[in-house]
Amino acid sequence: MDYAKESLRLHGEWKGKIEVIATVPVATKEDLSLAYTPGVAQPCLEIQKDINKSYELTRRHNLCAVITDGSAVLGLGDIGPEAGMPVMEGKCVLFKSFGNVDAFPLCIKTHDVDEFVNAVYLLSGSFGGINLEDISAPRCFEIERKLKEKCDIPIFHDDQHGTAVITLAGLTNALKVVDKNKEDVRVVTSGAGAAAVSIVKLLIKEEMAEVTNLERKPGSLADQLVGADVFIGVSAPGTVTTEMVKTMNRDAIIFACANPTPEIFPDDAKAGGARVIATGRSDFPNQINNVLAFPGIFRGTFDVRASDINEEMKMAAAKALADLISDEELSADYIIPKAFDKRVGPAVAAAVAEAARKSGVARI
Amino acid sequence: MDYAKESLRLHGEWKGKIEVIATVPVATKEDLSLAYTPGVAQPCLEIQKDINKSYELTRRHNLCAVITDGSAVLGLGDIGPEAGMPVMEGKCVLFKSFGNVDAFPLCIKTHDVDEFVNAVYLLSGSFGGINLEDISAPRCFEIERKLKEKCDIPIFHDDQHGTAVITLAGLTNALKVVDKNKEDVRVVTSGAGAAAVSIVKLLIKEEMAEVTNLERKPGSLADQLVGADVFIGVSAPGTVTTEMVKTMNRDAIIFACANPTPEIFPDDAKAGGARVIATGRSDFPNQINNVLAFPGIFRGTFDVRASDINEEMKMAAAKALADLISDEELSADYIIPKAFDKRVGPAVAAAVAEAARKSGVARI
Repeated sequence: MDYAKESLRLHGEWKGKIEVIATVPVATKEDLSLAYTPGVAQPCLEIQKDINKSYELTRRHNLCAVITDGSAVLGLGDIGPEAGMPVMEGKCVLFKSFGNVDAFPLCIKTHDVDEFVNAVYLLSGSFGGINLEDISAPRCFEIERKLKEKCDIPIFHDDQHGTAVITLAGLTNALKVVDKNKEDVRVVTSGAGAAAVSIVKLLIKEEMAEVTNLERKPGSLADQLVGADVFIGVSAPGTVTTEMVKTMNRDAIIFACANPTPEIFPDDAKAGGARVIATGRSDFPNQINNVLAFPGIFRGTFDVRASDINEEMKMAAAKALADLISDEELSADYIIPKAFDKRVGPAVAAAVAEAARKSGVARI
Repeated sequence: MDYAKESLRLHGEWKGKIEVIATVPVATKEDLSLAYTPGVAQPCLEIQKDINKSYELTRRHNLCAVITDGSAVLGLGDIGPEAGMPVMEGKCVLFKSFGNVDAFPLCIKTHDVDEFVNAVYLLSGSFGGINLEDISAPRCFEIERKLKEKCDIPIFHDDQHGTAVITLAGLTNALKVVDKNKEDVRVVTSGAGAAAVSIVKLLIKEEMAEVTNLERKPGSLADQLVGADVFIGVSAPGTVTTEMVKTMNRDAIIFACANPTPEIFPDDAKAGGARVIATGRSDFPNQINNVLAFPGIFRGTFDVRASDINEEMKMAAAKALADLISDEELSADYIIPKAFDKRVGPAVAAAVAEAARKSGVARI
């Protein structure tokens, strides 16, 4: 199927992929007096007295904003805020379908970090959490940091943390397949974008023996890969060759996540001796697909009204994902659950909620 | 029924009065590839080429933001942004139920006019229109003016214009009941808030013979009412007495819209000789209820993708409302359609769409 053409046709038919519906009746005068004036004054006054009641008396407890500036949409680059909205709506569909989270898409018309941060901060009282999406690096890091400082609700940049969580889950299981310990492996990462930086941070937290971020080390990728156990690319198509894989340690693990064309195709990696290969694509085994993480992460976060999505919660999400695959099921071609595995959302949500409680950020 | 108590109980049960749902399936890999990556790139690129396509390929064409700063919520005053949200959600319920408009509530945490304006401007690309709500006067006037200058989508402050539209409709029919011409009547208005100012402006546009805004004229309300034909109050409870009504011209028309306690109760006004009385309450005849206007106004605006909600469109809405009551049905107790009259939304929408076309602001 020509996905581009068919998707465009369908978007023209759909005219939007989300809808805002009313969940209470207004069929009679009495209904109106309860859902609206004069009765509605009472819940307003309760929230005025205690702002936490906004989680009990409005939809805030389940509402996530999906916010972009349109500066790094898919692999399309800076296409502008309005043009990013089909992706944001799609993300909202995934939030609802996989996590029962009400997500609403917003695009912000500025590339100025502080202006963006201030606009999002000003509207943050309307939501229970904020998912930043498709914002270019390095601006996304500063935006996330500043929003976390200013806002009293969780801020999550999925391109960074969602990808990192799933990569960590996949790598954990891949190491089991090749029977290596995380204390002994050397990992080479490539890419300077949001995902790459966040993956490196999470792997270091997980105490992988040696994590090399190619952007910060001298030497070419080919040099770095000699003797390495793991390559994680969130970089550019076709940058790794069969010959380069041959120089890696035995049973190499390759995460070639450039989209849609990976750093190296699975067959070429295998020809170089790689044992486990993951990509961002659904047409090969081991897809690093963000839908495995963000719906469950927000579900768990909202379930305990967490004030933050912290490192403990991300690590717990990764562990829950990895643990879904039993030792019997585990294989080189099955290190990560499938996107449509119904167990994923609930398992991630439960683990995240528990980690939020243990780390002291749960508010209920 | 104790509406306050019962409404609070229900709000605790409802936990929100709106929901964001997905309207497209994501049950298979193929679904995902069409609603999300890789297919979704194509609609994004189409919008990048022509921003107007955002109305055809996303939900924008039917999306209205309901935005407050919480500074003048109902009669409760400045209760803060989060505390205003039960009202905003209620408004969204009315938008959907009476106009099939998807409305989403946002509260903005600032009382600074320019900061508010900039935040709303920055997110305006996410919506097809903006309804400002419960913002204190005189800030609301400056906010509305600046937003209209900056944004390329319609901006509507319902507390001003919705109320004015319905008041004009009611007054048109009330004058028929007492058989007076608009060219001959003297109208006294009272109130300095958003609604009062907007009513005066619309009546002047309608070329009422003489419109006195009490706040701008010397003399007490009692002085002004002597010999007046019409009193329109959007001011304070109990400010008009039976004795004052007695000094008005024969067959006086009284719109006593202070809520929940009117400037004068209908029985007291009748005792002074008033012939037609309207209030903001549902338990007396002739309720000035904003739900008669805003859902149809936005429905008509969105139907022709109007760039503005201009004076012509408001006047058309008022006329459509007034015309719904035939000469045979018209009486002192029935000058305005009822809130649940199913004809209202479609009639207002059609008139508004036509006026948008005639005045050159329709974009499709």
